[in-house]
Amino acid sequence: MSAKIPVGILGATGTVGQKFVRLLAEHPWFEIAAVCASEASAGRPYGEAARWREPAPIPEPVARMLVRPATPPLEVPVRIVFSALDAAVARPIEEGFAAAGVYVVTNTRNLRMDPDVPLLVPEVNADHLALLHVQQRARGWRGGVVANPNCSTAALVLALAPLHQAFGVTRAFVATMQAVSGAGYPGVASLDIVGNVIPHIGGEEEKIETETRKILGALAGEGDAAGVTEADVVVSAHANRVPVIDGHTEVVSVGLARRATPEEAVAVLRDWTGHASVRGLPSSPARPVEVDERADRPQPRLDLERGRGMTVTVGRVRPCRLLDLRLALLGHNTLRGAAGAAVQNAELLVAQGWVPRG
Amino acid sequence: MSAKIPVGILGATGTVGQKFVRLLAEHPWFEIAAVCASEASAGRPYGEAARWREPAPIPEPVARMLVRPATPPLEVPVRIVFSALDAAVARPIEEGFAAAGVYVVTNTRNLRMDPDVPLLVPEVNADHLALLHVQQRARGWRGGVVANPNCSTAALVLALAPLHQAFGVTRAFVATMQAVSGAGYPGVASLDIVGNVIPHIGGEEEKIETETRKILGALAGEGDAAGVTEADVVVSAHANRVPVIDGHTEVVSVGLARRATPEEAVAVLRDWTGHASVRGLPSSPARPVEVDERADRPQPRLDLERGRGMTVTVGRVRPCRLLDLRLALLGHNTLRGAAGAAVQNAELLVAQGWVPRG
Amino acid sequence: MSAKIPVGILGATGTVGQKFVRLLAEHPWFEIAAVCASEASAGRPYGEAARWREPAPIPEPVARMLVRPATPPLEVPVRIVFSALDAAVARPIEEGFAAAGVYVVTNTRNLRMDPDVPLLVPEVNADHLALLHVQQRARGWRGGVVANPNCSTAALVLALAPLHQAFGVTRAFVATMQAVSGAGYPGVASLDIVGNVIPHIGGEEEKIETETRKILGALAGEGDAAGVTEADVVVSAHANRVPVIDGHTEVVSVGLARRATPEEAVAVLRDWTGHASVRGLPSSPARPVEVDERADRPQPRLDLERGRGMTVTVGRVRPCRLLDLRLALLGHNTLRGAAGAAVQNAELLVAQGWVPRG
Amino acid sequence: MSAKIPVGILGATGTVGQKFVRLLAEHPWFEIAAVCASEASAGRPYGEAARWREPAPIPEPVARMLVRPATPPLEVPVRIVFSALDAAVARPIEEGFAAAGVYVVTNTRNLRMDPDVPLLVPEVNADHLALLHVQQRARGWRGGVVANPNCSTAALVLALAPLHQAFGVTRAFVATMQAVSGAGYPGVASLDIVGNVIPHIGGEEEKIETETRKILGALAGEGDAAGVTEADVVVSAHANRVPVIDGHTEVVSVGLARRATPEEAVAVLRDWTGHASVRGLPSSPARPVEVDERADRPQPRLDLERGRGMTVTVGRVRPCRLLDLRLALLGHNTLRGAAGAAVQNAELLVAQGWVPRG
Repeated sequence: MSAKIPVGILGATGTVGQKFVRLLAEHPWFEIAAVCASEASAGRPYGEAARWREPAPIPEPVARMLVRPATPPLEVPVRIVFSALDAAVARPIEEGFAAAGVYVVTNTRNLRMDPDVPLLVPEVNADHLALLHVQQRARGWRGGVVANPNCSTAALVLALAPLHQAFGVTRAFVATMQAVSGAGYPGVASLDIVGNVIPHIGGEEEKIETETRKILGALAGEGDAAGVTEADVVVSAHANRVPVIDGHTEVVSVGLARRATPEEAVAVLRDWTGHASVRGLPSSPARPVEVDERADRPQPRLDLERGRGMTVTVGRVRPCRLLDLRLALLGHNTLRGAAGAAVQNAELLVAQGWVPRG
Repeated sequence: MSAKIPVGILGATGTVGQKFVRLLAEHPWFEIAAVCASEASAGRPYGEAARWREPAPIPEPVARMLVRPATPPLEVPVRIVFSALDAAVARPIEEGFAAAGVYVVTNTRNLRMDPDVPLLVPEVNADHLALLHVQQRARGWRGGVVANPNCSTAALVLALAPLHQAFGVTRAFVATMQAVSGAGYPGVASLDIVGNVIPHIGGEEEKIETETRKILGALAGEGDAAGVTEADVVVSAHANRVPVIDGHTEVVSVGLARRATPEEAVAVLRDWTGHASVRGLPSSPARPVEVDERADRPQPRLDLERGRGMTVTVGRVRPCRLLDLRLALLGHNTLRGAAGAAVQNAELLVAQGWVPRG
Repeated sequence: MSAKIPVGILGATGTVGQKFVRLLAEHPWFEIAAVCASEASAGRPYGEAARWREPAPIPEPVARMLVRPATPPLEVPVRIVFSALDAAVARPIEEGFAAAGVYVVTNTRNLRMDPDVPLLVPEVNADHLALLHVQQRARGWRGGVVANPNCSTAALVLALAPLHQAFGVTRAFVATMQAVSGAGYPGVASLDIVGNVIPHIGGEEEKIETETRKILGALAGEGDAAGVTEADVVVSAHANRVPVIDGHTEVVSVGLARRATPEEAVAVLRDWTGHASVRGLPSSPARPVEVDERADRPQPRLDLERGRGMTVTVGRVRPCRLLDLRLALLGHNTLRGAAGAAVQNAELLVAQGWVPRG
Repeated sequence: MSAKIPVGILGATGTVGQKFVRLLAEHPWFEIAAVCASEASAGRPYGEAARWREPAPIPEPVARMLVRPATPPLEVPVRIVFSALDAAVARPIEEGFAAAGVYVVTNTRNLRMDPDVPLLVPEVNADHLALLHVQQRARGWRGGVVANPNCSTAALVLALAPLHQAFGVTRAFVATMQAVSGAGYPGVASLDIVGNVIPHIGGEEEKIETETRKILGALAGEGDAAGVTEADVVVSAHANRVPVIDGHTEVVSVGLARRATPEEAVAVLRDWTGHASVRGLPSSPARPVEVDERADRPQPRLDLERGRGMTVTVGRVRPCRLLDLRLALLGHNTLRGAAGAAVQNAELLVAQGWVPRG
């Protein structure tokens, strides 16, 4: 593979869009061919249009690119677009690209729960990508849409999947303590969160409760007849915002179909590597899940960057008086929970042959 | 009642001790007669010995008092001592005062779960004070020890008690987001908590799980034969520290013996006033529980001072996919959860005649 | 004075407007007759239109008032309007009220530096109110406009005025560490300030440098010929935003015309009471300036509420290697620096007879 | 150079000591041969003795090393020791190592201002290393002591040095906003700093005011007769603590001997590379100073990691009403201001031949 695959970024000026720019600017397989945003930004150099919030500087070639309107088809050929569009406007744009033969790797919520849209945490359910056959047939698209889950769900599912595969997860209580970067920019007002907690994030609990069931679900059937049967995992979520910049911490009580001791659970979590096809992808961490047995871990400040933000850290695995186990977990909400997840999904599209390399 | 009741404060220089000084300096019934602390502080004026962290200045007469060692009997007569001693040293000191005929209102954990020690949230279980008969007989004390619960438990129990009385609480999943003031001073290092979350507080979960059962328990028997039967409420707690100065936020899923809609639960919480005997006490708030139905409440920054820190605010009462109801609650950890609770307990001792007024 | 003076609030739904509502709802002299805001809010009950951010609940009668458009004349008679309008729209509205015979007490910056507009910190320059004669003559108004300074300036001037009166302040270096509430709501994004410092606040330094000169200036002439000669104090300001909710901390080096030791400066600051005519006003604190000699004071968390937010706390008065003295000061930015200041200005208008009481 | 130079770390279990471990574990020239700490830790594996606060895990070989007491001579040969000892105990230990022929690169303050001790910011005054001749002669040592400045001073001096060399700095007013990591661990209590500012750091202002003069001073004389004449720069510092984890922000007004416009100053800062001999050292950043002209920079969250924490970022260069220029700067307090600085000093010792390589 000598030439890189040209890709576009939709909603490139926002916080997730900026993460896409940073991750893709140095990507071994992809090359940013277009940065797209709203009409207000279109025509301006990206370096001016974006209020850049990443610590590292804007990659020079991208800074000079003129922002394009996010409307298909783009004047430059792209095989994949990464969508960080606002959910309110995303649907027709994403559908337009998919109809035009482009694969849309989206971070927006609109299509996540559609039965023919793969909702992926690749290590967990890379096989769900087969839904693209159904999607293309049903919608008459030459391209397609692949979604990553909500940021809290992504981290949760990585901790639950090994336990689900080994013991069967039947129930889960989840209380999240979510970073402000999850709300975008400007997002949460400082007056609301400095020295404070907000026990509410609109729509978040519902997403955690439903997306988890789909991702842990089983693929059945083949080709056009493929479908995902949701896992019978009943989740009850309490979503909270805390004054943390990056990193969602979640405390979880888990009910299992087959009993397991904390030690057995730790062993399963430690040994888990996920779908073999995912291991070699550029964005895949060496270990999708790490267990830290120190009493006060994981913590955003100390554990966030494991696996370049793609590893979920689990700690405090212990018995629960109500269900079987309790644990705490931490995931990087803008990497494993958003931009990094989408890039990994795109890599999977290439690795499985949906997007040609050369 | 013309003269005030002379009281002492044990551990008066620490953070809870300072709250005692502030609350008692202006108290209508009590008068600070002695401030006691470790040998290192003894003999120095309180204003020098205490590293004062309260926003309001040290009450002048107390600032000039010489700190005494915390050893009974004190040279000045006191009827009640408020104990904010370190748990590691508290037991023999508190027992010494009780044996000497003084009533010890303690914030320490040592004796809380002893069957003959009243563990009080007065609005909930003022009747448990009858355990003092048992305690005096069993231990041969002329005084006695009355305890208030752990700070997280105090807030939780006030939200659960109305539901327990109306519908029977059988199970509760609790995740706390606790303020740093709960750890005393210097307590939590800033390097550990600025912009961070710590999903661990030593011993806290166990306290929440066991103290709740005792406080919600039923008193049976009379006189020396009195005893509390723990409520059959199974609690699973996840304790977390967040960068908040004051105010513990807790998210809770509740299982009920008799089903209730969120509307019914809100009505019960709103109407609940607790033990009639507690209502008129100086520290009792007009309403021990308030419900705020705004979507993003309660919050430490906005709701902490209700009822001068003695009211627990409940919000987000909604269905739960696993148990019956979900809700969020907030309590002031150093007032309702510590010093204010102890002062209210002392008021109850007076109101019920254990300590004479005049 | 049996009946209260009817007043209106312009920009009543914003953060400063909310502070006005809170302060005026219980005011002994004033009565809220109208709450005004943008067309978008007009016609809705205040309790719905305002996204209330104050800890105390919305005063009930105000919550039910219908918001009016901020255009003079109001359908209800008012003698004073308190303006928390956005500077971009304030000028014609405020001028319209003044022309219509209403006194406008404004927190906006537009007219502050106009030579005929009193820019008041009442304890310092209550006599500047005489500029109203000039203003009414020059502009043909029956009412008038009185301004309070920028929040950082208000606190600075209260610390400098005693020194200026005693020793003559010639130069001042100021570095501010300002709370996020100074930027309104939503104001500063949490992503920008949690665990961070921003060494820039647009326009702030210029305001501190120029407003200080006017407030410390001397009134000369009488009636229509009155005017303020700016004080010859050269100020260099560095404005910074820090993750604090309320309270601007400022560190200052001061050059004096007549040398003074730190002890002499402290004595002057301690003894200073400001204009006699201001002392009895309802919003005036017992002491406009307090000195705290503890090594690490003042601090927002511990010293903010002195004088119900109207007292400035000064500490760390010590020699300076470059100028004469160094010190640190703290002022409540939304009370002494905004809403409280404006209410105090209105009280002065009444006390000096510009607005009749009955 | 095939073999690495064996080095020891004194005070290895503290926060600066941990940074030494992290930086030296992967160093191209140095190899950790010994980790030393107080008697309480001696004999235990480093991985147990250190309460590790770095995000990256403890380097495995170091985790297994047994901690040694910090007393010379060590049983293993070392050529350099890095000292992060507590100042209260450091002096005799450091002197003992120097007498025994070891070069002590120290972060403690004790010897910084001794006339024969090089106080280095290598890009600024690498030539001051010649003081070692004087030191060895005067003290009869075969080794020697080299110090890095206080963390705030290190960043300040890097911004002032280019201006000093080009225009002559005569005066500087400095207000710092310092991170909590500067106080070590546990250091600043969270109750003191969450949502707060403390306008006081013990001893800090004096260090900034005096160390700056020595570092910017000129070396004169040769061999045993060498000496540093302090620069005639009068500095007035205001030190403040803010709730930031890492990164000291400083706002500075600068007086110059020869006038310069902000544009000229920016050009000088941009072009400055410092001592040629320092450029190639492993810890030297590509640019010791970077200028960011965006209005709201530098900021700890966005600019801290430039040059792997060894680059100081300057912004907001603009005129000053009292002196000549105003600017804001940011330096990484535990890297450029502590451990990174010491490692760079050690590299300079090697590069200049004081410590043999092979």
